[in-house]
Amino acid sequence: MLRDFETKKREDSNSLNTEIKQLETQLLGQQQLLMKEKMPVIVLIEGWAAAGKGTLIKELISELDPRFYNVVSPVVLPEADERFPFLYQYMKAIPVNGKVTFLDSGWMENVVRKYLRHEITKEEYRNRVRQVNEFERQLRDGGYIILKLFLHIEKRKQYERLYRLAEDPKTEWRVNREDLMQHKEYKRFLEAYDDFMEKTGSTVGWQILDGSHHKTAVRDALRLLVQRVDHAVNDGRYEGVTFQEEFPLKEMPKLSEVDLSPSIDDDEYKKELKKLQTRLGELHNIIYRKKIPVILCYEGWDAAGKGGNIRRLTYSLDPRGFDVHPIASPLPHELNRHYLWRFWTRLPKTGHICIFDRTWYGRVMVERLEGFCTANEWHRAYNEINEFERMLTEWGAVVLKFWIHIDKDVQLERFNDRENTPEKQWKITEEDWRNREKWDEYETAVDELLQKTSTKNAPWHIIESNDKKYARIKTLKIIVKALEKACEKHFKNMME
Amino acid sequence: MLRDFETKKREDSNSLNTEIKQLETQLLGQQQLLMKEKMPVIVLIEGWAAAGKGTLIKELISELDPRFYNVVSPVVLPEADERFPFLYQYMKAIPVNGKVTFLDSGWMENVVRKYLRHEITKEEYRNRVRQVNEFERQLRDGGYIILKLFLHIEKRKQYERLYRLAEDPKTEWRVNREDLMQHKEYKRFLEAYDDFMEKTGSTVGWQILDGSHHKTAVRDALRLLVQRVDHAVNDGRYEGVTFQEEFPLKEMPKLSEVDLSPSIDDDEYKKELKKLQTRLGELHNIIYRKKIPVILCYEGWDAAGKGGNIRRLTYSLDPRGFDVHPIASPLPHELNRHYLWRFWTRLPKTGHICIFDRTWYGRVMVERLEGFCTANEWHRAYNEINEFERMLTEWGAVVLKFWIHIDKDVQLERFNDRENTPEKQWKITEEDWRNREKWDEYETAVDELLQKTSTKNAPWHIIESNDKKYARIKTLKIIVKALEKACEKHFKNMME
Repeated sequence: MLRDFETKKREDSNSLNTEIKQLETQLLGQQQLLMKEKMPVIVLIEGWAAAGKGTLIKELISELDPRFYNVVSPVVLPEADERFPFLYQYMKAIPVNGKVTFLDSGWMENVVRKYLRHEITKEEYRNRVRQVNEFERQLRDGGYIILKLFLHIEKRKQYERLYRLAEDPKTEWRVNREDLMQHKEYKRFLEAYDDFMEKTGSTVGWQILDGSHHKTAVRDALRLLVQRVDHAVNDGRYEGVTFQEEFPLKEMPKLSEVDLSPSIDDDEYKKELKKLQTRLGELHNIIYRKKIPVILCYEGWDAAGKGGNIRRLTYSLDPRGFDVHPIASPLPHELNRHYLWRFWTRLPKTGHICIFDRTWYGRVMVERLEGFCTANEWHRAYNEINEFERMLTEWGAVVLKFWIHIDKDVQLERFNDRENTPEKQWKITEEDWRNREKWDEYETAVDELLQKTSTKNAPWHIIESNDKKYARIKTLKIIVKALEKACEKHFKNMME
Repeated sequence: MLRDFETKKREDSNSLNTEIKQLETQLLGQQQLLMKEKMPVIVLIEGWAAAGKGTLIKELISELDPRFYNVVSPVVLPEADERFPFLYQYMKAIPVNGKVTFLDSGWMENVVRKYLRHEITKEEYRNRVRQVNEFERQLRDGGYIILKLFLHIEKRKQYERLYRLAEDPKTEWRVNREDLMQHKEYKRFLEAYDDFMEKTGSTVGWQILDGSHHKTAVRDALRLLVQRVDHAVNDGRYEGVTFQEEFPLKEMPKLSEVDLSPSIDDDEYKKELKKLQTRLGELHNIIYRKKIPVILCYEGWDAAGKGGNIRRLTYSLDPRGFDVHPIASPLPHELNRHYLWRFWTRLPKTGHICIFDRTWYGRVMVERLEGFCTANEWHRAYNEINEFERMLTEWGAVVLKFWIHIDKDVQLERFNDRENTPEKQWKITEEDWRNREKWDEYETAVDELLQKTSTKNAPWHIIESNDKKYARIKTLKIIVKALEKACEKHFKNMME
């Protein structure tokens, strides 16, 4: 009897090894297909301390070409030390098309741990769960193949593993206080993990693996990954759904209805400019200390005066506390990732101001009009952008969006002026003239985006800029007011 | 009399303002030239606390197009918290061609502050001063226009400024303990700054500005910048000098002299592999805890077996503690910076291992042979690379370089095998065949680089890889031995 049992066990183990080998070979083949089809893969591996996440990853990558994957081990900082939105580091780590990122724990560990540490409130927990769902949907819709694994072990097994690690002087250091706390509070964690998985399983489902049998877990993980990739490769790139949530919107006029006559006289301008710049300088100090992040978005017609407007603004700021991001065509490594990636990775640290000179709205303007993305993609973008900006404001950021507006005649005047003034000639290109020919199409696109994305939390402001000086003053006033409000709100929030 | 004095003062101030305006306009014009000529500029602004560095930068950028510059404010972490070589953050911040980076304090503040804090020894101080000189020379030779400014104020003036800041509740927070310490120890700092400037002024000279007169300092800084740019634009891109330091070298055979017959039998291979992988796993833990960074460089003939060799190595490592960097042709944002930038920015954190699958030696191989750089540039590179690697080992890194070697016949066999095996076809491209035709030229280039860059601290190892298994075992043995030695040395250093 016992001898039979032993034989059976050996056979099982052998057949498991064979199966793993086969799956690894399959994956190796898929690697080429993924590269060819430019499909990116994210493998999220969550689970208990000592469940074997590291070892699992080691097996998954063992046969792969290092050019093909990346392993990332994000850290969960205390919330007070976080300088970016909590999803930032995961977004930063997404692979380029054709490659795989393995995450050794990720957004689940982040949200659950902070919630259990009482670093985020119940409401923040709910928001973050929603943000995770949005994040996963956006990536999936953007063509990312996502596999979410949870490596499970029972409390008893965790005890054994931690004990074995702690006992050996060579590995003792690997058992940290957090692991021990998790073990002591196993039940609390179990409930919290469960709750999180229940609430985040509908877009991309969770797969629970048995971490107590290492080989089986490896086989199962490989099998799931191979199946998922197989599925994706055969069905072609996921096309995405045009999901549209109803966001509370501010009503916006059509561009053609905007009265562009407002102007300001020179004395008034100088006086106001000085006053506003001084005040902005003060506010910059305050938001720096209160760690409020500020995101200022500039869009507008060519020659509308964005540059000069931004310069009047930055002049009052401490250069150590702000960045201007001029947004041109995406570089190859940007083009090969989700379209919002290059904006996520340019977000300001808490307490800093960042100014986007052109923004993610390129998706629903130039990319839409020039056919750089599919209709499905730009249709979907309004909602994705609204979600992105809500995430930013929930993080605590002040988000202001300016459409710097002029009429067609004024643009022509300024174009001609640029062409006729030697030191301004660099500012005018063939492309500007080409864009001008598409004025009406752009106007339609802009009207649409103003209607659909002027959310209460991140509203659009149309800045009449036929008189540039008037435009500058108006923009500065809006910024000053918004920052004052944010400082006040920040204090209120602290007291609640 | 007094009225005359007042008038004179007003006139002086007016003429200063006019001059500043003129210089700003000139700089604005140069901005276009720099873009056109693709010339990058680094403006380093060092100086006393409260000397007005921030305000100076604000003035310098006030008229510039934000697309054209970047302001960086590096922090000086305590040495114990640094995870990268001290120059890392400055190298990371260098601009792309055609743009300007303003550094609000930089490598001088870093080295001096750590020395005065007793965080680095006298010997380390000397090494870092030397590294700074090498760093500046390499950037200058690489076409970077560098301006180094020191904003000086006397002790009394610093007292006034700090007092004024500390007195005002709005700005009180800006005065930190470090500033006060600096003020109390003004003389020590003065001597240290002086010493540093004396020792780092010969490649790129220091310019001392009078920080007590804000406007004058702005005018002087602008004037220096405009002059420097003017000079560079008129003289054309700096061509660099072929400076060659004598490094202690390990003697290397010519490739043609290498006996490629060594092999290993299968049983021996399996046994050794297992043993070495286990040991490497243990050592990985130790170097992680001791925070020793490890840099493993792979070069070799196409189809020599680099990939398989690397995989046998990584299999024994915890995936959370290493990265493999496959090096392909540089991307545009890499091509537009110093050629070592993309390697600097991929350096491992302390305690981590990084594996370069192809390296900076591309400069003296493919770039040399394909004419992607000038003769002057690749001639210079041997020395630059030796300096780079010395910097790495002085930082504490283990640097090992492997040339994976096969002969021409074996390559042909493997190429054919790849072409005839469906799942290996992706590994063979037209380019591989083209490179093969240039075998002899490559051999000359490799022989030369082996002779010139096998320094005692970062030696080359030729790995006979006609038998891939032999090659893997040999590589692993070298790595294990080097890590064991590093752990021992690490302990010795601590005790000294």
